[in-house]
Amino acid sequence: MQNFEFHNPTRVIFGVGQIASLAKHIPSNARVLMLFGGGSIKSNGTYDEVHAALAGLEHPVLEFAGIEPNPRYETLMKAVELIHRENVDFLLAVGGGSVVDGTKFVAAAAAYDGDAWDILKIGGKVVKAALPFGAVLTLPATGSEMNSASVISRAETQEKRAFMSPHVYPRFSVLDPAKTLTLPLRQVGNGVVDAFVHTTEQYLTYPANAPVQDRFAEGLLQTLLELGPQVLARPDDVEVRANIMWTATMALNGLIGVGVPQDWATHGIGHELTALFGLDHAQTLAIALPGVLQIRREAKRGKLLQYAERVWGLHAGKGSEDERIDAAIGNTRAFFEQMGVPTRLSGYGLGSEAIDAVVAALEAAGLTGLGERRDITPGDVRKALQLSL
Amino acid sequence: MQNFEFHNPTRVIFGVGQIASLAKHIPSNARVLMLFGGGSIKSNGTYDEVHAALAGLEHPVLEFAGIEPNPRYETLMKAVELIHRENVDFLLAVGGGSVVDGTKFVAAAAAYDGDAWDILKIGGKVVKAALPFGAVLTLPATGSEMNSASVISRAETQEKRAFMSPHVYPRFSVLDPAKTLTLPLRQVGNGVVDAFVHTTEQYLTYPANAPVQDRFAEGLLQTLLELGPQVLARPDDVEVRANIMWTATMALNGLIGVGVPQDWATHGIGHELTALFGLDHAQTLAIALPGVLQIRREAKRGKLLQYAERVWGLHAGKGSEDERIDAAIGNTRAFFEQMGVPTRLSGYGLGSEAIDAVVAALEAAGLTGLGERRDITPGDVRKALQLSL
Repeated sequence: MQNFEFHNPTRVIFGVGQIASLAKHIPSNARVLMLFGGGSIKSNGTYDEVHAALAGLEHPVLEFAGIEPNPRYETLMKAVELIHRENVDFLLAVGGGSVVDGTKFVAAAAAYDGDAWDILKIGGKVVKAALPFGAVLTLPATGSEMNSASVISRAETQEKRAFMSPHVYPRFSVLDPAKTLTLPLRQVGNGVVDAFVHTTEQYLTYPANAPVQDRFAEGLLQTLLELGPQVLARPDDVEVRANIMWTATMALNGLIGVGVPQDWATHGIGHELTALFGLDHAQTLAIALPGVLQIRREAKRGKLLQYAERVWGLHAGKGSEDERIDAAIGNTRAFFEQMGVPTRLSGYGLGSEAIDAVVAALEAAGLTGLGERRDITPGDVRKALQLSL
Repeated sequence: MQNFEFHNPTRVIFGVGQIASLAKHIPSNARVLMLFGGGSIKSNGTYDEVHAALAGLEHPVLEFAGIEPNPRYETLMKAVELIHRENVDFLLAVGGGSVVDGTKFVAAAAAYDGDAWDILKIGGKVVKAALPFGAVLTLPATGSEMNSASVISRAETQEKRAFMSPHVYPRFSVLDPAKTLTLPLRQVGNGVVDAFVHTTEQYLTYPANAPVQDRFAEGLLQTLLELGPQVLARPDDVEVRANIMWTATMALNGLIGVGVPQDWATHGIGHELTALFGLDHAQTLAIALPGVLQIRREAKRGKLLQYAERVWGLHAGKGSEDERIDAAIGNTRAFFEQMGVPTRLSGYGLGSEAIDAVVAALEAAGLTGLGERRDITPGDVRKALQLSL
């Protein structure tokens, strides 16, 4: 295990009905801006519940609507203007990972003296302060509700950039699984795939003698394998939703990643696919992961065999090492497909031209190496994606 | 899963050599009191390392030595006096769980207007503030370094009482596994047993449809089963020490207990055994747990079978349900013995008179029911302990 620091100050308020307790967690004299996306929070009642919970604040709650999936810098800067104009001092994200990610950027940008694009261009280290904010989560997937990371897209330049800063941990996040019951199945499947790949990015690297982190990651993967089919079979089961929600939070709140190498090549490739072709984030991960695991089977052999055994029950008796690795990767692909997320470019009407574009974009961005050893080249990315044509 | 709130703001600074970074985490103008136990931190170098790391503070670091295992109210109140006399405004616990628990009480008592015994008699809800403090951990076991709980003994009345308060989370805890290399094997074994039982208290209850919490608990138990024999075989292996240290922290930082029923009967019984006969905390847990599981086998049947299967590999083919439960409990007892911790009263020179004394003490304390359903009576405790004569 490597040395590490872990500090996650986000307060999680979990369970059906918890939105009603919101006001306890926001100063009563705060000037609150509520940020959200499209209309789903209005149709599923979340919008009204939040307003009812905050009715006792001294100042009326302002609103900023229209944060997109893959939230855009251009949109978010309008929220920053509103904040300055109205002297907003507390933000409340109501939505999924995109709204939370967007709110993190807004919180940092509103407190930043200079060109806010620096935060994404130079990185989170330029962030020295941020407005305080909380979140009401309606879509379990990204883990943004309990971490300090944010991914923002710039429409103008087709860039998708991430930043991290300890200043953008949510002060609190309300996780009410009943709010996820009305999600379209496509988003449910995406969320399961997203949480799954967040876990593998921190687990399928090389053995680092970190048994707790390994067991926790395996536990999250096993749980997703159990719950994924259940949520499709019983979409009204709020207990299943609750457990998926908690799994997705735990998959990317930093805990399973302490002291171990991390990969994130699949995300690096996926971000390009989204930026270029507008695919959902989880769709891009489902395309990229199987190929990445295949081309990295030697570097990842130890952990792939452990994954095969502990997550898929492919014990030593069940074929040669390579057969077990192939079966584990194949099972992973089949699980994503089962969740309604195609794992091949052809499933989205894309072909080899998409691979050329991704490779060109990575080269243009000056990629020198992805993965836990920073040695995955654009040529390797081409090979990985060719396995998912 | 039940609704829950989770908020753990402690910063963990983990790894060999991390004590050197201490000053980063303490205000440079703080008036620091370092609290510790006996001489072990002097003989193993920790004392000197801490002083070297804090040499740059504006004010000299004061010291309070002599916090006992099972820290005593009477001793700790002397530290409170010193704090008031010297205007101390930051505490640093250097030692094991007893020193950290003691420092939590001191931090709360120093900020409390009234009889500090209230904190233990009435409970942590009377605590409205506490001095800030950090910890340098030298003994992995209790999890106190990353939680808000503290157990204090009063010599005068032979009482052992616990309190919890959100004000007594350590601001930071430095976990350097190299500092644990010089522990006597008795304390190493105790630590493994303590972490194991912390986990079972939050896991071996009744099924609550909380798969992440279950998998995490099982992962900690599996890890302890793997590492326990390793630390005995290779006491100089700092990697094994590191993983035991992190396991013990994770076993009681609140995470595996969110949204699930909790038992703590074994601790309730154990505290009486320590208060009456001076046994080490882990020794009392090793005596009490097997009997508690036996007498509760019907109430805990579902989770005992899951424990048998997932932790001990006792699958459905390996005997009847009752045989598997017996084997899992027997294996647990054998593991504690393997770790050098006797699991029978006779191993400590005690007999049935000790059981009478524990039952009388529980009755005198007005016990109406222990366990996850608050229905374990003093008579049940007698039966449980008779199984460990």
